[in-house]
Amino acid sequence: MTEIEQRVADLAAGVAPVDGAAAAAARERHDQLTKPAGSLGGLETLGARLAAMAGRCPPPVPERPAVVVAAGDHGVLAQGVSPWPREVTAAMVAGIADGRAAVNVLAGVVGAQVTVLDVGVATALAPHPRVRRAKVRAGTADLSEAPAMTRTEAARALLAGAGVAGELLDAGADLLVTGDMGIANTTPAACLVAAFTGQPAAAVTGRGTGIDDATFAVKVKVVERALVLHAPDPADPLGVLAALGGLEHAALAGLVLAGAAARVPVVLDGVNADAAALAACAFAPAAVGYLVAGHRSVEPAHSLVLDSLDLKPLLEYGMRLGEGSGAAAAIPVLTMAVRILAEMATFSDAGVSGPAD
Amino acid sequence: MTEIEQRVADLAAGVAPVDGAAAAAARERHDQLTKPAGSLGGLETLGARLAAMAGRCPPPVPERPAVVVAAGDHGVLAQGVSPWPREVTAAMVAGIADGRAAVNVLAGVVGAQVTVLDVGVATALAPHPRVRRAKVRAGTADLSEAPAMTRTEAARALLAGAGVAGELLDAGADLLVTGDMGIANTTPAACLVAAFTGQPAAAVTGRGTGIDDATFAVKVKVVERALVLHAPDPADPLGVLAALGGLEHAALAGLVLAGAAARVPVVLDGVNADAAALAACAFAPAAVGYLVAGHRSVEPAHSLVLDSLDLKPLLEYGMRLGEGSGAAAAIPVLTMAVRILAEMATFSDAGVSGPAD
Repeated sequence: MTEIEQRVADLAAGVAPVDGAAAAAARERHDQLTKPAGSLGGLETLGARLAAMAGRCPPPVPERPAVVVAAGDHGVLAQGVSPWPREVTAAMVAGIADGRAAVNVLAGVVGAQVTVLDVGVATALAPHPRVRRAKVRAGTADLSEAPAMTRTEAARALLAGAGVAGELLDAGADLLVTGDMGIANTTPAACLVAAFTGQPAAAVTGRGTGIDDATFAVKVKVVERALVLHAPDPADPLGVLAALGGLEHAALAGLVLAGAAARVPVVLDGVNADAAALAACAFAPAAVGYLVAGHRSVEPAHSLVLDSLDLKPLLEYGMRLGEGSGAAAAIPVLTMAVRILAEMATFSDAGVSGPAD
Repeated sequence: MTEIEQRVADLAAGVAPVDGAAAAAARERHDQLTKPAGSLGGLETLGARLAAMAGRCPPPVPERPAVVVAAGDHGVLAQGVSPWPREVTAAMVAGIADGRAAVNVLAGVVGAQVTVLDVGVATALAPHPRVRRAKVRAGTADLSEAPAMTRTEAARALLAGAGVAGELLDAGADLLVTGDMGIANTTPAACLVAAFTGQPAAAVTGRGTGIDDATFAVKVKVVERALVLHAPDPADPLGVLAALGGLEHAALAGLVLAGAAARVPVVLDGVNADAAALAACAFAPAAVGYLVAGHRSVEPAHSLVLDSLDLKPLLEYGMRLGEGSGAAAAIPVLTMAVRILAEMATFSDAGVSGPAD
């Protein structure tokens, strides 16, 4: 194992299982609160999970959520898998840096900080306080013809994601949100989901930003061809990321591992986040305990991954924007689930009678 | 028509249809924002509806949401439709006044004000700044044996709900949320839903706070018997409320009408809110345009009403608490839908290229 691969393995080894006793304490507390037992439904389930992540009940109220938008370009765009030109990646990164993209607006509603992590945008970006520069390479190679990147590059991108997550956590962030930006990135995401779940190209490929039938047919073929070419081994997640991933998927896998290692919830956005989450869970299966599915996107692979990870999405609005938008929109639900545990009166506090037996 | 019934009719006559042109302007703006067309899914649909309600695009950002928890007791409790003793209504009202019930916690997350409206709690309540006293009578009569209240009482409760809504709106509230508290109130709610939709008792009756099979069987029979006894005419909503309703349902119908007349969104909670909304829409069909379904509760009548009003719930967490909790939890989604329209950059603002043709 190379030194950098060892660093990835060390990061993964730092992920401890969630705390079942804290979840049990949360369930017990829910039953003492002034409400019919179980009447807060999914908010109770989520509250217990957040307690398990934090290792205590009530878990801390999320006050400083941080969205990391990992950005990269994709050689596979040359195959015609998206109608959007490559320059849009850099332009949208500039828009997010400028604070007026969808993710900024949604993050603004909940007081979340947005950081762009440039791990692989093809063009040079102007310096901006909201953009972390950690470019591993100027976009991936065309995964339908060659590995998207080397193992070392995948590891570097992963550690860049973990690094920015670590810095944000050190600065007080208490909730991480995955974001992504990269024209054509749902093609590598589909490849990664296929590689980790064993599903065929037709089941994992979606319409991304909303491509037409002809482009969709091309995209399915590209995913099929790439899977045959690389014959990915899901037991070697770094190899899978290197062969089929995007730099932003590797970075988000690192962010997931860093969040899980810090016992902080990581809210997943759409199919790009899923692809990264599958990689992270291949490195450290316990990481799944720290994942929250922000929403259910329209991408077919998204529902497939949520089922395979047994995650129930918090919002179902048919969104398919990326950037972390669907995950950011779900942040208030986490806050509510925690504050119910932290702030509601119990029957004994309130002197309220329970139901007759 | 009596003078008080005329006042109800005048309130209903003040509800104007929503503005289709503003909705169209919102859809056009959505297509100019820096995102793939339609990629914000349900947030776009909601944004366009909120524009239609306000009559302008972008609609105003909700900054002062107000939850009104209408409270009352129910003579039908004597039939054994709930295991909770009647005193719990007053105790829970005191808990909400005290600020530590579920609705307070959820409202606190979104900065919403909570007001309790006592239109019919059986016991006298201690004065409290959060409790508006507008008691019409000390709980309803047993609707399975006689009309729950007189037409005049129903009208007075309705106008009390409209009155508190009007005061809150005058004081700057820009979003209304329905809340309810009243042991046994899902029984009158089921009766009202049956009366307005024509569905049978078995289809509209649910388990409320979580009753057992025997209690549930009693509840269905009670609803059946009441429907036979009163033979309600859905074209006479005041008569339906008087025969089968709770004082809090009448009050919430008034709140819906007052919100709609003021072109302000009204977020519905669960089945009690639905019952009130059906009454409001029977008085003024255009009121439906101002309704937002906060969540989908587990009550069977709830989904039935949402379908009949063509409302899609914002959250689906299997909640069944009442108090306005499921509606309060959804407030951030409305804020997000509006701020997307108000704050996101357009392609031309951002100098971003669209997709290739």
